[in-house]
Amino acid sequence: MRTRMQKFSDIEDRQGGRVTLVGAGPGDPELLTFKAVRAMQEADVILFDALVSEEVLAFARSNAKRMLVGKRGHRPSCRQEDINDLMLKLARQGKHVVRLKCGDPALFGRAGEEIAHLAAAGIPVSIVPGITSASAMAARLDVSLTHRHHAQSVRFVTGHAKDGATPDNLDWRGLADPATTLVIYMGGRTGAAMARRLIAEGLSATMPCVVATSVSRPAEKRTLGTLGELACGTLTTESEEPVLIGIGSVFAAASAVPTQTTWAEATAWP
Amino acid sequence: MRTRMQKFSDIEDRQGGRVTLVGAGPGDPELLTFKAVRAMQEADVILFDALVSEEVLAFARSNAKRMLVGKRGHRPSCRQEDINDLMLKLARQGKHVVRLKCGDPALFGRAGEEIAHLAAAGIPVSIVPGITSASAMAARLDVSLTHRHHAQSVRFVTGHAKDGATPDNLDWRGLADPATTLVIYMGGRTGAAMARRLIAEGLSATMPCVVATSVSRPAEKRTLGTLGELACGTLTTESEEPVLIGIGSVFAAASAVPTQTTWAEATAWP
Repeated sequence: MRTRMQKFSDIEDRQGGRVTLVGAGPGDPELLTFKAVRAMQEADVILFDALVSEEVLAFARSNAKRMLVGKRGHRPSCRQEDINDLMLKLARQGKHVVRLKCGDPALFGRAGEEIAHLAAAGIPVSIVPGITSASAMAARLDVSLTHRHHAQSVRFVTGHAKDGATPDNLDWRGLADPATTLVIYMGGRTGAAMARRLIAEGLSATMPCVVATSVSRPAEKRTLGTLGELACGTLTTESEEPVLIGIGSVFAAASAVPTQTTWAEATAWP
Repeated sequence: MRTRMQKFSDIEDRQGGRVTLVGAGPGDPELLTFKAVRAMQEADVILFDALVSEEVLAFARSNAKRMLVGKRGHRPSCRQEDINDLMLKLARQGKHVVRLKCGDPALFGRAGEEIAHLAAAGIPVSIVPGITSASAMAARLDVSLTHRHHAQSVRFVTGHAKDGATPDNLDWRGLADPATTLVIYMGGRTGAAMARRLIAEGLSATMPCVVATSVSRPAEKRTLGTLGELACGTLTTESEEPVLIGIGSVFAAASAVPTQTTWAEATAWP
């Protein structure tokens, strides 16, 4: 008698090649979902971002092919067009491709272009959501991003800009709303300039601010300060890892020391 | 010889009573993280929101006490103050209390007040992040919330208002930014009025819009339309379940039929 899971796999197999965009979360393998692990267990090929941790990749099916598609250290970076074409080629060979992306596929990171490219070619695409870095950072800081005494909304924006300048197509006046918690993804290069612009738009220089790198990983670093310190460079954002910046009065209550253990802390020997 | 996990549990036990706010995700038990399940396995008492699914609760330690703290159907609702006091009382008895909340604890849902109440009493609090409904909805629709051709940022806002009126303390001009994807949580009562206000602030009535209830659950419903239809009530938001509303040009590419199977679909018999 076939089990339920076998029945499900049979259905999937009949569909031929397909691509699943899977959220790997921020790095701690305990922040993977069961659904993400199921997708990694069903994959023929896993195309993973450079920042996906080894501990996360360990959940892949042992005979799945693993391919790094992204920049790591000084190795050359794959172009987005090449990643799109590689996914398409593998799916057309009948492979189940897992595109393993840091955080949540629906937030930044070019998933929109990958989906459009595959959909235009008739390849079935699906998404498995992941824990986004802002959620993981809030958990590590013991704060709500929307504590109702402080914030009525939360906004995620990318600080990524090719030339290191501040993005010029942002709604700066809206971003400077003091009742909205702002989280800047990939803000390492532009964080200070963005802080100066927010202050110019009227956001207080005393607004609490946190700079975090490698959230939920053994190398995690968090620095608490103010928007003014971020603007003048006292609150440094320099890092080899992607930098997450939180701005808003909710961060006034942030814990200086994390209380939630990571996988690495939980399993470390003395 | 003690295993790594035993060693970890010893450390936790020595800390005495404590509270862990755990994100249960949107409902599909496959969207739980390993860390959430570990917390549920270590709990003495689990205080759960009314909307936490039975399938999620099934992961609790079998001898953990489970207590519903929230409104379900016509049963009376717990006051937030009573929930705060109950958590405090149980933690002071030395219990490990898991406060199991829908979605991600850091996004809406009064976690900020719960943390402040416990922290003021010296009770250790930690947070396990969860998949928020907006991420799950994006996955079910096969869209990126920040497809860079459409949106440079994403904003989550609550539509919850006690009197059913639109919240008057929101930055409406900022919310009407066409280059920011907007997701309204708990927008069932106020969605239409919020849409009218957004149009009045200049957002196009043709802006794509999606109304979703019970995201990732067997009862999931998604309706695609426009902001104008939402404003005039054609795109209905009436539901017994919490309503999630997405507004933005990224939703133009939304799939009418979900491609990612839920746990219920994956395990259902014909």
